[in-house]
Amino acid sequence: MIYLDNASSAPVNPKALAAAMPFLTENFANPSSVHTPGRAASAALDKAREQCAAALGTLPEEIFFTSGGTESDNMAVFSALGINGRRKIITSAIEHPAVLNACAELSRRGFDVVRIMPDGDGIVRSEYVAAAIDDKTAMVSVMTANNEIGTLQPIAEIGALCRERGVYFHTDAVQAVGSIPLDMRKLPVDMLSVSAHKIGGIKGAGLLYVRKGSPVLPLIVGGGQERGIRSGTENVAAIAALGAAIADITADITRRAEKITRLRNLLIERLEMIPNSRLNGSRTLRICSNVNFSFGNIDGEALVMSLDLMGVCVSTASACSAGKQRRSHVLTALGLSENWLDGTVRLTLSENNTEKDILAAADIIAECTARQRSG
Amino acid sequence: MIYLDNASSAPVNPKALAAAMPFLTENFANPSSVHTPGRAASAALDKAREQCAAALGTLPEEIFFTSGGTESDNMAVFSALGINGRRKIITSAIEHPAVLNACAELSRRGFDVVRIMPDGDGIVRSEYVAAAIDDKTAMVSVMTANNEIGTLQPIAEIGALCRERGVYFHTDAVQAVGSIPLDMRKLPVDMLSVSAHKIGGIKGAGLLYVRKGSPVLPLIVGGGQERGIRSGTENVAAIAALGAAIADITADITRRAEKITRLRNLLIERLEMIPNSRLNGSRTLRICSNVNFSFGNIDGEALVMSLDLMGVCVSTASACSAGKQRRSHVLTALGLSENWLDGTVRLTLSENNTEKDILAAADIIAECTARQRSG
Repeated sequence: MIYLDNASSAPVNPKALAAAMPFLTENFANPSSVHTPGRAASAALDKAREQCAAALGTLPEEIFFTSGGTESDNMAVFSALGINGRRKIITSAIEHPAVLNACAELSRRGFDVVRIMPDGDGIVRSEYVAAAIDDKTAMVSVMTANNEIGTLQPIAEIGALCRERGVYFHTDAVQAVGSIPLDMRKLPVDMLSVSAHKIGGIKGAGLLYVRKGSPVLPLIVGGGQERGIRSGTENVAAIAALGAAIADITADITRRAEKITRLRNLLIERLEMIPNSRLNGSRTLRICSNVNFSFGNIDGEALVMSLDLMGVCVSTASACSAGKQRRSHVLTALGLSENWLDGTVRLTLSENNTEKDILAAADIIAECTARQRSG
Repeated sequence: MIYLDNASSAPVNPKALAAAMPFLTENFANPSSVHTPGRAASAALDKAREQCAAALGTLPEEIFFTSGGTESDNMAVFSALGINGRRKIITSAIEHPAVLNACAELSRRGFDVVRIMPDGDGIVRSEYVAAAIDDKTAMVSVMTANNEIGTLQPIAEIGALCRERGVYFHTDAVQAVGSIPLDMRKLPVDMLSVSAHKIGGIKGAGLLYVRKGSPVLPLIVGGGQERGIRSGTENVAAIAALGAAIADITADITRRAEKITRLRNLLIERLEMIPNSRLNGSRTLRICSNVNFSFGNIDGEALVMSLDLMGVCVSTASACSAGKQRRSHVLTALGLSENWLDGTVRLTLSENNTEKDILAAADIIAECTARQRSG
């Protein structure tokens, strides 16, 4: 099997699994219990919080653990409700549905929601954001890297102009962590979402970074865990795994990114040899792990299925949408015609892929597209 | 170690762990991916949904997976917002904070919230609920079994009168599953919350049962997983474990409950020998696994710590509240004086406990209380 669907879910890092296992077996205690096993579980949360803080350049108390990226995005966006007198939110047309649908809910609750269109390369230009900010604007939410086409957004610029205008800035960094360095001491970001299972952790955990002093509202209320911001018994195993995974993936990010970039460029080069094909999204402003290609006169769904039969795992768009048959809102925003839209596959890499994998996958894709076109 | 804090978090059932492990190791795929490993992950969700449905007597499509009991409770209570023209919710004063704090949020959003007081035995009497229901009432939320004192609430009666009056009925069954049979074909319940880690599953999963036709609103929005009701990549491993755990714990519930009841009664009998002590909550209308005792002139926190040093794990009230130092709202509602309130411990059993454990724990508690009183 050649797995090229790492943006949907990545292999579990053995170090992350090792960090999780004690809390799935001998120590099953609740971290709020004050007895010895409870305190050990609580200490594991502290350790993971420190690992996440170190990886992102934050204070430990700025890290709030959640059940995943979607919940983190929702928490951030719904926190705009707490900024009194400001009833406008600016986002982009290519955000993850976790942000877009939270914004739609804000719209039902009286917010003015502005969705900035990207340029043809899939970049949300900071000048478009600047033009949309006004005195009513509570928050801007623009992702660090797009989940379908991997384009890197100018979050440093957008964050800087938000700060200048007194507007809070959230970024969904789910696809960016591990691909590019993210240092909150340098980036003018107020809130940032991370998902564990995209970076070698296990499913069921994520985090929201909230810069000290930024407003954040709880989405899930109850026993007051996570300093009152996220109630519910903490998922100790998945949080411990998240800490280990983020520590590992950010430790040697340069070497890792170089290796994956090499594989990605090789894959792009090979796929460009297929006639009637195009790379979607900027070639340069792009995370190392993403390749998104459209093939003319190809049914992308059918291509994914025939690749699966040949042992190559890819997605059409993102796997994050349970309604898989709809056309990609991201590629639509890029202005792709229906012919390109319907013949799209996303191939996302990890360090586990090899050059041999990439060459074999490219050959199989060439074979499958040729067969479908002649069939 | 003698673990008597099973209501905070229970040992992981080896069958549940076995169900989870493939999805923490070789199959890390996203269940929304259409390739082979994605479909295998999706099949695991289907299987778990069927196991949960079978255990509770529901249709599989009436089961919605969440991140845990707190999220399930929040989803249920906030769904009252979707019942147009009805802006009143009735709950009890002894609910879990996940229900009480969600109701407090509804109150901030214009709801009239009625908190029914329990009787001195810790029972929320159905006639008190009946008297509070009016034409403005959207929902009643009363737990199946209390998490601190284990008292069983008359949910069949309350559900029946809700149905008669056209009011939706939610019950938090987090502490009841595995202690008493819960069959949705027989019980007039519209929504029911379950947590995985209280019944031998792993942390990070729970479910909300929603009877077909009952209104439910999503709390977390995004990719539209769980038929649009709960977005976010499904926690496949924890959901698979929940399915296995609920199947196992409900399979031989009579034998299991009889065994634990015997141990519980033995523990109560021994603790009653300690002078100046009292059992809190009804002796008969009580889940098999709960013992809640107050000791006069004892600092409960200090007792928990000295028991921990002797290898006995217990809680003061529940571990579900991160603010551990506050006095129990449940025992306060029962009318206990401060002397009793401050000297309370909760001892909660599982099938893993033995008669030897119970006798040893009772002796150690007797010793520790005597020492504290003479110290």
